[in-house]
Formats: sequence, structure tokens, C-alpha cells
Amino acid sequence: MVIVMQEGASDAQIQQVIDRLIASGFNVHRSTGESHTVLGAVGVHRDFDHRDFELLDGVREVMRITQPFKLASRQFRPEGTIIDLGRGVKIGGPDVVIAAGPCSIESPEQINSIAESIAKSGAKILRGGAFKPRTSPYAFQGLGEKGLEMMKTAAEKHGLFTVSEVMDLSQIPMMSGYVDMFQVGARNMQNYFLLRALGETRKPVLLKRGMSATMEELLLSAEYMLAGGNFNVALCERGIRTFETYTRNTFDIAAIPVIKKLSHLPMMADPSHGTGRRDKVAPMARAAVAAGADGLLIEVHNDPDHALSDGAQSLDPAQFDQLMRELRIIAPAIGRTMAA
Amino acid sequence: MVIVMQEGASDAQIQQVIDRLIASGFNVHRSTGESHTVLGAVGVHRDFDHRDFELLDGVREVMRITQPFKLASRQFRPEGTIIDLGRGVKIGGPDVVIAAGPCSIESPEQINSIAESIAKSGAKILRGGAFKPRTSPYAFQGLGEKGLEMMKTAAEKHGLFTVSEVMDLSQIPMMSGYVDMFQVGARNMQNYFLLRALGETRKPVLLKRGMSATMEELLLSAEYMLAGGNFNVALCERGIRTFETYTRNTFDIAAIPVIKKLSHLPMMADPSHGTGRRDKVAPMARAAVAAGADGLLIEVHNDPDHALSDGAQSLDPAQFDQLMRELRIIAPAIGRTMAA
Amino acid sequence: MVIVMQEGASDAQIQQVIDRLIASGFNVHRSTGESHTVLGAVGVHRDFDHRDFELLDGVREVMRITQPFKLASRQFRPEGTIIDLGRGVKIGGPDVVIAAGPCSIESPEQINSIAESIAKSGAKILRGGAFKPRTSPYAFQGLGEKGLEMMKTAAEKHGLFTVSEVMDLSQIPMMSGYVDMFQVGARNMQNYFLLRALGETRKPVLLKRGMSATMEELLLSAEYMLAGGNFNVALCERGIRTFETYTRNTFDIAAIPVIKKLSHLPMMADPSHGTGRRDKVAPMARAAVAAGADGLLIEVHNDPDHALSDGAQSLDPAQFDQLMRELRIIAPAIGRTMAA
Amino acid sequence: MVIVMQEGASDAQIQQVIDRLIASGFNVHRSTGESHTVLGAVGVHRDFDHRDFELLDGVREVMRITQPFKLASRQFRPEGTIIDLGRGVKIGGPDVVIAAGPCSIESPEQINSIAESIAKSGAKILRGGAFKPRTSPYAFQGLGEKGLEMMKTAAEKHGLFTVSEVMDLSQIPMMSGYVDMFQVGARNMQNYFLLRALGETRKPVLLKRGMSATMEELLLSAEYMLAGGNFNVALCERGIRTFETYTRNTFDIAAIPVIKKLSHLPMMADPSHGTGRRDKVAPMARAAVAAGADGLLIEVHNDPDHALSDGAQSLDPAQFDQLMRELRIIAPAIGRTMAA
Repeated sequence: MVIVMQEGASDAQIQQVIDRLIASGFNVHRSTGESHTVLGAVGVHRDFDHRDFELLDGVREVMRITQPFKLASRQFRPEGTIIDLGRGVKIGGPDVVIAAGPCSIESPEQINSIAESIAKSGAKILRGGAFKPRTSPYAFQGLGEKGLEMMKTAAEKHGLFTVSEVMDLSQIPMMSGYVDMFQVGARNMQNYFLLRALGETRKPVLLKRGMSATMEELLLSAEYMLAGGNFNVALCERGIRTFETYTRNTFDIAAIPVIKKLSHLPMMADPSHGTGRRDKVAPMARAAVAAGADGLLIEVHNDPDHALSDGAQSLDPAQFDQLMRELRIIAPAIGRTMAA
Repeated sequence: MVIVMQEGASDAQIQQVIDRLIASGFNVHRSTGESHTVLGAVGVHRDFDHRDFELLDGVREVMRITQPFKLASRQFRPEGTIIDLGRGVKIGGPDVVIAAGPCSIESPEQINSIAESIAKSGAKILRGGAFKPRTSPYAFQGLGEKGLEMMKTAAEKHGLFTVSEVMDLSQIPMMSGYVDMFQVGARNMQNYFLLRALGETRKPVLLKRGMSATMEELLLSAEYMLAGGNFNVALCERGIRTFETYTRNTFDIAAIPVIKKLSHLPMMADPSHGTGRRDKVAPMARAAVAAGADGLLIEVHNDPDHALSDGAQSLDPAQFDQLMRELRIIAPAIGRTMAA
Repeated sequence: MVIVMQEGASDAQIQQVIDRLIASGFNVHRSTGESHTVLGAVGVHRDFDHRDFELLDGVREVMRITQPFKLASRQFRPEGTIIDLGRGVKIGGPDVVIAAGPCSIESPEQINSIAESIAKSGAKILRGGAFKPRTSPYAFQGLGEKGLEMMKTAAEKHGLFTVSEVMDLSQIPMMSGYVDMFQVGARNMQNYFLLRALGETRKPVLLKRGMSATMEELLLSAEYMLAGGNFNVALCERGIRTFETYTRNTFDIAAIPVIKKLSHLPMMADPSHGTGRRDKVAPMARAAVAAGADGLLIEVHNDPDHALSDGAQSLDPAQFDQLMRELRIIAPAIGRTMAA
Repeated sequence: MVIVMQEGASDAQIQQVIDRLIASGFNVHRSTGESHTVLGAVGVHRDFDHRDFELLDGVREVMRITQPFKLASRQFRPEGTIIDLGRGVKIGGPDVVIAAGPCSIESPEQINSIAESIAKSGAKILRGGAFKPRTSPYAFQGLGEKGLEMMKTAAEKHGLFTVSEVMDLSQIPMMSGYVDMFQVGARNMQNYFLLRALGETRKPVLLKRGMSATMEELLLSAEYMLAGGNFNVALCERGIRTFETYTRNTFDIAAIPVIKKLSHLPMMADPSHGTGRRDKVAPMARAAVAAGADGLLIEVHNDPDHALSDGAQSLDPAQFDQLMRELRIIAPAIGRTMAA
């Protein structure tokens, strides 16, 4: 922690801050400049609220210098984390891994048809929602466990892994039998009870950035799981809320290279939620891969016009196949590969 | 729903939209203007995703016209909702009701000392946190049930009601024995599992606006509880996230008159979280009352410099007392009263 | 400037940063902590781009510690600036000063009628626009110099001062004959050519915060004028752009106490633009005074329903009079007065 | 314009709105639904403030349906605009056109060295600043006309076109002799006096999006120039201001496909300002091309560590050359080409 005193702070004020730092267990270094005195405090505890010092007399600014996340930082594992799902599918390795599927699982036929087509196009993971947390209490709420069973059957038939959103910690045991990867949605990114429970499992987790979460907060949420011992965590950019209303969210593609530098965790992107409009999904998917994403999450529906939810942002199988062809051209530009 | 066709949309395109509207169960009105054709669709279902029509050929814009919340709307109860806590304390009536107390309950002495002083100054509700959802997994996490018991004892001794944050639906039965009002925190504003469970109780709920939630989303979250039959819901502005970094959040005071016009639910404000800095709490508290708030939530600590959490935004008892005197001058300017 | 080295930065990396700091003319203090080395650099020039050091090997973070504004800072003039318009009207003194008038000057009758009514209600300054910078090129663009003349005539008749927006530096000489105070609009807050020209006059300037400007940027824009020798500058909060769309802007009332602490300049507020809706003007005006504003800028029109611009956010004379009565109750709560 | 009446609006209220619409010159269509009455008003003038109707009794919502820009809309010129600079360089055609150069022109040697290297790597336009509008009044302010002369000499020697920022309309005649394209900076995007003056020239203009401007506002600013007869306008995404602070701005890549659908004007992107950090420029440049940008604006400096401004976000010639190689791989994925 660095404390900058006000111009003209008195010796008594400076000494009071030093005394309090020492009482809090810090080692203190004092730099006396022409206009400002700067105090460096070494040995800060992670649960320290640095704002407490901002209110002392004579203090101008207090700056934290220790990153609040540690296990999630790139320094902790400079070589990067690879999540190995099996059968050669690794998130964070040279391959860009694609997860695709419908917003909501609707029927065995629907999910099987989608699984078949995305597998042919080169996706490795089937995504599908069984519990739908809708903003309105009056909207379709999902098929629940029955839906998960349909998804698992379809995935196995076509050699795919599965990912689905967990909404409450009580669902973890049941869902473990159906999914290869838990998804934590944007609205639950700071549901610490849920994060802690997932940290006690060893199953891979896909953690989506909250729509108003900073990158640092995303990494702190990951830290909750890592602190529990679960290092199989992938992060996912899905758009942040800004003043712009034409797109549903503003897809913050810069988060991809930024977070890959700050952290060793794989970084994926969800261009479907990032824009909320079908005709913008392909451009944003290409952009995310060009920016270095380790994987994508894309909504695909066999019949988007009649989807029970989010049809407006779903690709149909032909559009998805075309996108996969484009991505195969782009990946080599940044030294990545895409499985056929 | 109103659908605006593009300039030059063909008759076939217009007919396709009309056909699809009828197939979805709408009555359709067609207005043919000089440059645009406009279709009015009557009878929209609440779970309808109007974006589905945006992607049809020839459509320029689709506008929802039914508010997605109904039970929470002012029209549903034009006279306004009053939450009667008992002993004459009513949120939403002529009195501006003040809840005050520490961020975290720390000890019987601490909470009793705070309760005593705020009661003397005119607060009616004791607030205090027992489960602390901190952004960092390494920070103090609260005293739990033991803390709630301390709070209840202190409140009863000084004639106060109690409010505390519920973090997970599993805590509802236990907490019901200690609190007169559940608080739902900003991070849980869209935790629909929790909201639905609270809708099944009849205990008052204080629902805080999420830091990136629109006013409409706040009302939709309230709707989840109202739909379950619990109408004892008060809303609370506590600051939204913007580009400005000098204050922790941007306290959106305009939300007070706006929401009071849109909804019959009482509207409170939390100036402590709204700014995150002690020296800004009093100005923002005064501003909230001047703007028409039905109540305030204020962090008060007997010894802010040594508080275990959020000391930097807590008032001490003397500052709180001074603020209460100022509020008593302001309330009559808008026809409100404040109990002595 | 404080430079925090990465954990594990090598001695060579640290030495390279020190060498470069010295070459740039800084005195350097080195603090070697357990995990990080921190370098304090004293003597930073104001035009120094501290990001240059962020890219050196081994550097984790670079923090500026000198505020980039100096003449605008509270330390420069701790007693505060008072803008004396004459005849006892002082912005920044104990009186809360009210400027009111129409968005656009439309005719001699209109401006005279408004001037008469606002003067009776206690306003001291007549505001009115003669050049209207509209977002759309097809909207009404104002009466120009003729309008200013009408405003001046009306103001003199009713004992009011005048303020009007200057759009381009070429207008300064002409406008000087008509206005007592120049207004710089939100869109021009960073038009440095205009600010520099106004800094060379000695006429009071009302500088509005840009809709996406931080408080620091607002103070830097004021600094441009102060650096030219014109200290008669008042600042004005008028709402910032956020994700919330129900109100036109989010009126950032906390900026009032924050800026009054950071700077000696008077701080006003414009609740009309801050919300964009007539029925929210009065609550926000009351809130601004309760938060400590030195003055208000309020749109008043004798016939809002037929105003040529911004009628939707204008009060009529009766509404304005009622608001003034409410403000007279609130002002004493914070030790301020309002002239009758 | 569509006006939605409140549930339960009376016949008298509805009639009042209709009467006023007719008085304003509209044709009115009335749709009476079960819960709401909807009025369609045809014939709206462009300078109409639809908020005027929001305040009438019984009105719930008023929606504009005519886009406020017309000449800038895709419908006006469905085939798209191509800006032909000469010698085969066309912005908006199949080639992705790259403009590169320093933030500030510093010396003949500097600008010549940069021009030589970027020309070799395939850039077609030399960019460089001669007037630097800095946030702080104490920072380097540019070489002025002398700098433009240096740039022109360097550009001609290496077969490049030139672009530089115009700050005030008084500079237009002088700058016309040196630049092939005017740049309007983000802070001037709504300087309508400047836009109108540029609309009267026929020289190409590169209009950058303001940091808090919506896409619609960007198009309205373009409309100012188009209305003057200058159709040689290219737009440029350069990052918007959000709550995220790790990057200087949030580079809104989705604006590229969105605006290309809304408008016929070419759409460029500036990844240097979009992120503010050198190591993020290449990923964002690749992403912008993958999303469909017609061109890029990239800061390149021969010696970034000693640049007089913005060195931190400048690439050196080798980094720029490597980026150009990557872009040549990506462009074909979306059917574009890049000149060698």
C-alpha cells in the first residue's frame, strides 16, 4: 500500500499515519519529496480495507499495490492452465475449442438435431440451458433435469462434451451426473455461496463475466473457486452494459488479451450474448478468435424462428457451418489451430 | 407491440409479418403511412420475445408497449403501498423512516451501543450484516446466526425493528426468527431462486437495486416477489456503476421520483453505499429526502476507525445525530414528517 | 509518481527503471519490500505521460500522485472563490443563486414575460439560448444576436443578470456586449481553443460538465481558463451518460460535495438537463440544494407546451414559484440563505 | 411517431392528444386495443421534439419511428460509399486501407523515417498530429503548420496520402494545402460549427466517434456534413467510455457491423486509442478487420519510448510490419483483400 500525504501535511499528521500503519502490522518506508510525503506500507493483509486510511487527516490518496487475486494471477502459473476434457479436447491449448447449442433444451429431437449438426461442423462441446433465469417471472423457465438427460444422450451419440448453467448450489450433485462442465452465468458471477461450492468440486467451470463486472472482479470470483482447490476454471467475456443501446451489450473484446496477460486461466468468449443479434454473431465470433480467445460459446438452434428463448441471437446450422469455415482461416493468423 | 416496417418494405414482406403475428395469437392493426407501414399487435403474452420479429425481412424496429411488470406498477395500486412494521412505524406513509447500524455486527457491546445512539437520534430500524458477501475470498465474512441474535437483543432493548441481508434461500427459515425485514443485496437483485422463495413468505423485504440494473429491472425483480403474494416490498437506490471513479458508485437520486411514479412500492435510499465515502453520506442523505425518499439506510458505527468492514463509509453517532437534525428541517419542504 | 515493480522483478530491471527516471530529471526513492519494490519519483513535470513507464520490463503499475490541476485545486485558494456579479449577487457566497429562463429565446414578449415572473420568484440571473447546437442538423438553430438583444432588454427591465451559451470563440466579442456570464455547454467542455480564449477575458464563465466527463476532466478544463488568468469560473453538474435510459442523463449529485472539496470554484447544478423531464426537475433541484449547490440553472418557459425547444423539461412560472418556496425551506438546513 | 396511451386513459385524454397531433400537422391512425390505445402519427418533421407529447395527460410512452438521419442511412445509397483518394486507394472498396503514423509530428527526420517504414509494410495513408488538444493545459501542443509541411513532404516521397486532425474551422483553408483527408477528433464529434464548415468542402473527412456518443449520434454528426453536400465521409470507432478502467476505453467492435448495416458510409477503426496500450493494439486491429472494418488507423512511431505523446500506445515499425502480415491472413476470411 502506498499512502500519499497532502501537500503541506504536518509532521504530526504524518506521524499519526505512520503510527497507525505500525499498529496494523505494516513495515513503513517514508519518502519525503519536495511537495508530498509518500509512505510505503509493506505486509498488507488481503482483507485490509485501504479506504480506512483515506479518511485520516492529511492523507491525499491511498493506493493498493498488491493485486487482490493471487491464485488466478499469471505469475502463479506462468505457463497457463489447460482444462483437459478428455479425448484430446483441451481448453487453453493450441486448439480454439467451440461450444455450441441452443439457449434452452426443448426436446430430444431438437437437441439431437443440433448436436449432430454442430459436431459435423467441428464443435466439441454441446451447450444447452435446462434452468432459465429470466428477467421476467412470466417467461419460460426451462425443462430442468429432464432437459439435462436429453442433452447428455444427444452429446454422447455425437461424441460431444456438455456444459450447462448451474443456478443454485443445491443443483450441483444432480447436475454432476449430466454435465462435463458447469457454467456460472453472468448474474451469478458474484454469488459467493455458489462459487465456494463449485470450488469444492473438481469439475471444470465456465465462469461468465457479469454485465457490470470489471476484469478484476471476474478474476476475484475465479479466485473463490481456486481457493477451494478447483483450478479447472475457464473465464468468458459476454458483453458489458454501457450507454449504447443498439446492441444488447457491448462486447468487450479487449478483455481477451488483457485477461490472458493478467491470468493463467483460459479465456473464452460468447458472441451471442455479447451482441444479442443474430447478424452480429459471426463478425464478433471472428473478432474474438482474431483477438486470441481460447474458445467460443455460440448459440445454435435447428429452427431459430421457433426457439422457445433467445431465437433472435441463434445461428442456424448452415450459418454456424459457414462461420466455422471462416474461423479456420483466421486461427492460423495468431498461431492457433482448429480441429476439423 | 408495435412493428415499424422499413421504408419501401414490399407488400409480401408486410403480409409475412402480419401472418406470423396472427399465428402467434395477436390482433393486428395496420397503419399505412407515406414512408412507413406500422403494425400494431394487441394481446402480447408476457413471455414473448419481441426480438423474434426484428429479424424478419423488411422490419425496421419492434417496440414493446406493455410494461413487463404489472403487479409492481402504480396503476395496480394507485394509492401506494405502506409497509406496517408495527408500533406506528410505516414505510411509505407520511413519515420518512430511518434504518441505521453497522455494516457488520461485531459484538454484543458494539451493536448495543449503536442501537442505543441511533434510537435516541430518531431511527426506527436497526440494520446490521451477519453474512458478508465480500468481493475478495480473503475478507471477513461475518458472525452468522450469533450476530443476528446479538442484533435482535439490542434492537428489542431500544425499541427498534431489525433488517439484515439474506444471502441464500436456505437461510430464510433461520433468519425469520431474528429479523423484521429481509434485505436483498445489490448482487442478489437478480437471484430469482431467492426472490421466489421470499415471495412465498409474508415478511417485509428491502430490495436493493443492482449496481448495473435499470429501474425497469428493479421493478421486474420486485414483481417476482409480488407474484408470489408478498406485497411487503420496499425498493432501495444504492448507486449504479458508471465511468466516474471518484465515488464508488454514482448515486442515482432521480430514481426516487421516477420509481415512485412508475410503482406503488415505497422507495428508500442508501447514501452510504451510494458514495462509499463518509464525508459524502450526509449531503446525499439530505438530497435523497429532498427528492422524496420514503426512508434511508445509513451505516453508523460507534467506532468507525476500527470497524471490521466499511468503516470508511460509516458515520459516528454524533455525525448521525447532526444529520437527523438537518433532515427534520428538509422533510417539511416536501410535505413529509420525521418522528422525533 | 510511484512505480510498483512486479513480484520477482530482477535487479537489472529495477536499475533500468531508476536510470530512466534519473535521465528524465526525477529524484528517486527506492523501497524494497518483501514481495514488491516500489520506486518513488519526485519532481514530475505536468506534461509527463506516466504510461511511458508502464511498458518497461518488470513494471507492474505506475501511479501519478500529483493532481494534474493546480490553479483549480482547493489548496490554491482554501477560502473559496466568489464570483461577484454586482448589486449583491455573489455566486459561491452564503446565498444560493438561481438562474432561470427558456432553452431558446423566441421573441421579445416571451423573454420579457419569463424575466418578469422569475424575478418575482427570486431568481437573479436570466438564462436563454441564442445559438442552439442541436444533435440533428434539421432542428431549430436559434435567433442569434437578435435574441441576445431581446434577452438583455428584458433582463435590464427586471433587474436580472444574463447568461448565454457561447458556441465558438469567434462569438466572444459580440456576445460580451449582451451577457454578464458566458456559458460553455457540455459538448464544448473540451473545446480547448474556446476555453483558452475565454481564459483571456475576465468575464464570468459557467462551465458545464460534459456528459461523459469525469470530475477531474471538468477541473482540467477549468484549469485552461484559470491558466489564462480568468478566475471567475463556476462549474455546473448537468447529468452524465449511463446505461439507464429512463432519464435522459443520470444527474450525479454527489459531484457537488466532491468538487467543492477538491476545488475552490463555485459549483452549480442544472436539474433540467440532468433529467430531461419536467416532473423530475423540482425533486432534483431540491436535492441539489440539499447537497450543497451554490446555485441552480433552471429552464422556465411561459408556455412550455409551445416552446420551440426543450419544452418537455421546462417549468411554467407557477411551478417555478412553488419550487422556490420549497428551496427556501431547505437552504437553512445546510446553513445557506436564499434571497427573497 | 407512435403514442401509447396509459391503460385506462379516458376518451377525453385520447381526444386531446389526437387534437394536438392534428394541430401539429400529423395524420393520425388510432388503434384501440384491449388494454391500451395506440396512436400512429404520420408526417413528423425532423425537428420535432417527441418528448412534448410525453407530458400530456394519459400518455404512457412516445416512440419516434423515423430515423433522425436520412442522407447517412444505408437506404439512401444501398450500394455503399467509396472514398477514392486516387492512385487506386479507395476506402469502402474490397481493399482494407491502412493509415499509420505518429500521434505527433516531431521533426522531418522522424516523420520521414516513419513514412518510409509504413509504406514498405503496405500502409497507404500517413497520419500525424500537428495540433494536439490535450486534456491538460500544460502538455505538448504540437508543431502546427510547420508539422503539416513536414508530413506532406514525407508522404509525397513515399507515395502516401495524408490525414491530420482539424481542431477549429479557422484551420480549414490552411490545412487544405497539406492534407488529403481531414480528421475530426472524438472531442469535436459534436462541434456543429466545424462539421458544417467541413460539409461545405469536398475533401474527405474521417469522423471519429465521441467517447460517449451512441452510434446514432455518430451518424447524425455525419449527416451535418452530408447535408452540406460533402459525401466523402468515413466513420471511425475508437473506443467508448465505460466503467472498465483497465483499458483506456472500451473498443466497441460491434459498432463496425452495426454501422455498416445502418449506413452506406465506410467504417474504420482506431485500435490504438481504442485500448491505449501498445500490447493490445495488434489483437484489436486483427479483431476489427475480422469484424469487417474498411480500414484502420494505427499509431506507429520510429522510437516509441521517446515519442513526445502517446508513445505508450504506438507500435514500432517491426511490430507494425508483423501486424500487417497477420491482417493479410485474416482479410480473405471475410472476402476482403489487402494491397501488398
